[in-house]
Amino acid sequence: MMDNFKIKDAAGFRLSDHPTRVSLFDRKSNAKDKINEDGKVIADIAHRLYSEANRSVLIVLQGMDTSGKDSTTAAIFARTPPLNVTVAAFKAPSKTELAHDYLWRVHNVCPKAGQITVFNRSHYEDVLVVKVKGYKDATAIEQRYEQINAFEKHLSENGTTILKFMLNISKETQGERLRERLIEPGKRWKFNPGDLVDRALWPDFMDAYETMVQRTSTDHAPWHVIPSDSRTTRKAIITAIVRESLEAMNPQYPDPGYRIEDYEID
Amino acid sequence: MMDNFKIKDAAGFRLSDHPTRVSLFDRKSNAKDKINEDGKVIADIAHRLYSEANRSVLIVLQGMDTSGKDSTTAAIFARTPPLNVTVAAFKAPSKTELAHDYLWRVHNVCPKAGQITVFNRSHYEDVLVVKVKGYKDATAIEQRYEQINAFEKHLSENGTTILKFMLNISKETQGERLRERLIEPGKRWKFNPGDLVDRALWPDFMDAYETMVQRTSTDHAPWHVIPSDSRTTRKAIITAIVRESLEAMNPQYPDPGYRIEDYEID
Repeated sequence: MMDNFKIKDAAGFRLSDHPTRVSLFDRKSNAKDKINEDGKVIADIAHRLYSEANRSVLIVLQGMDTSGKDSTTAAIFARTPPLNVTVAAFKAPSKTELAHDYLWRVHNVCPKAGQITVFNRSHYEDVLVVKVKGYKDATAIEQRYEQINAFEKHLSENGTTILKFMLNISKETQGERLRERLIEPGKRWKFNPGDLVDRALWPDFMDAYETMVQRTSTDHAPWHVIPSDSRTTRKAIITAIVRESLEAMNPQYPDPGYRIEDYEID
Repeated sequence: MMDNFKIKDAAGFRLSDHPTRVSLFDRKSNAKDKINEDGKVIADIAHRLYSEANRSVLIVLQGMDTSGKDSTTAAIFARTPPLNVTVAAFKAPSKTELAHDYLWRVHNVCPKAGQITVFNRSHYEDVLVVKVKGYKDATAIEQRYEQINAFEKHLSENGTTILKFMLNISKETQGERLRERLIEPGKRWKFNPGDLVDRALWPDFMDAYETMVQRTSTDHAPWHVIPSDSRTTRKAIITAIVRESLEAMNPQYPDPGYRIEDYEID
């Protein structure tokens, strides 16, 4: 699964080559069974990662409003206890955060050894919304791609496996979901009129996403571009990729070498 | 469930009046069904708490080694996504932490609005291990009970519901579990020879726990003393109490008042 959605030719990446909808499962129930099965494996490996307490995992979820960042997080970790899983959601920076460089607040919440952290939005907003809205000039944005690559290389070299997902939805799907948010009582709290401002800038955002993937898909931290118009398919793909990545890490319960015969327990 | 294990008469509390084992369920499967059912309700209310983003919950788990703090956390949140649930585990303080007062590192990881935080051990270690091992003198310990009550009152008045659980096990049960840790490959990583040092001080720790409950069971942050020799019963009781507490909070999906007719979504 991993290889189908991983961007290997960064320079040649064109967002328009990547569909927002794919047909991967014969039936919805097959996708749900797969999510469930993968979720159990993730829970088991996450516990071993916790016990190993040596390496860590950073999952970056980026996408337009309604692309499913929260519900993807819920799907991946439906079976995993919160012992070593945390979510960091990045909103507009505070005054204190703005007084520091843009990676300062990000570094602060990176996973420690044994932990898995999900970024719901991330430092990539600093080359997305910041670029589209012109909060920084072109030179500063240009520098940021390389700064981000260096930062992620640093994390990677220091034991963090980085998995980056762009949740790729169509403008039509976003329209449907925003209308749902205005109608369904359990979703209305998520609606924010500001989302419509970003929506009006859709082509600019897509350009910024394309450049982001081109410039920051690296060997140590590749982007995965995920067709996300179908909620179930999106969850199934990402959960499968997380499972495969954890399996590749293959953390083990450490054996500190203590033996029952070494201790007398009264 | 809540009322059976909540300490109401703090001054009259005697640990020896509280069993480490109770018979609450006819069959183990009944307890497991109850945990599962409560877990689903907790997941639903946790999501509403997240959407409400106004109040928060702090769950304090204190108990001797092997009393089940990790697995209780896993049981309570078996059905809840990590979106707004975090676990803070308190180990021996670092040099930087020791350079601050003992509540500094604790305050730093208290839940923000909409969040639930589990403390795996807590500031109570500062009147338990610190007292038993004599790291601070009697006057300082004496002050701490009142400092902790004031701190928790502050949190409570500022929107945090505090649920404190003492996981009450017998020394015999700890012995069995420590032996398990030395034998089972998936548990060996948890064994720490230092645990035997604390075990040798069992009566002193029990005295410190008793005084802790007497001095810090307050209206705003009562202790619950949980019979914890049975893993399943312990999980069932605590999960039920968390469910009941969340139900009493009754968070609601906020309605910001946006109406479909106010917006045109192209």
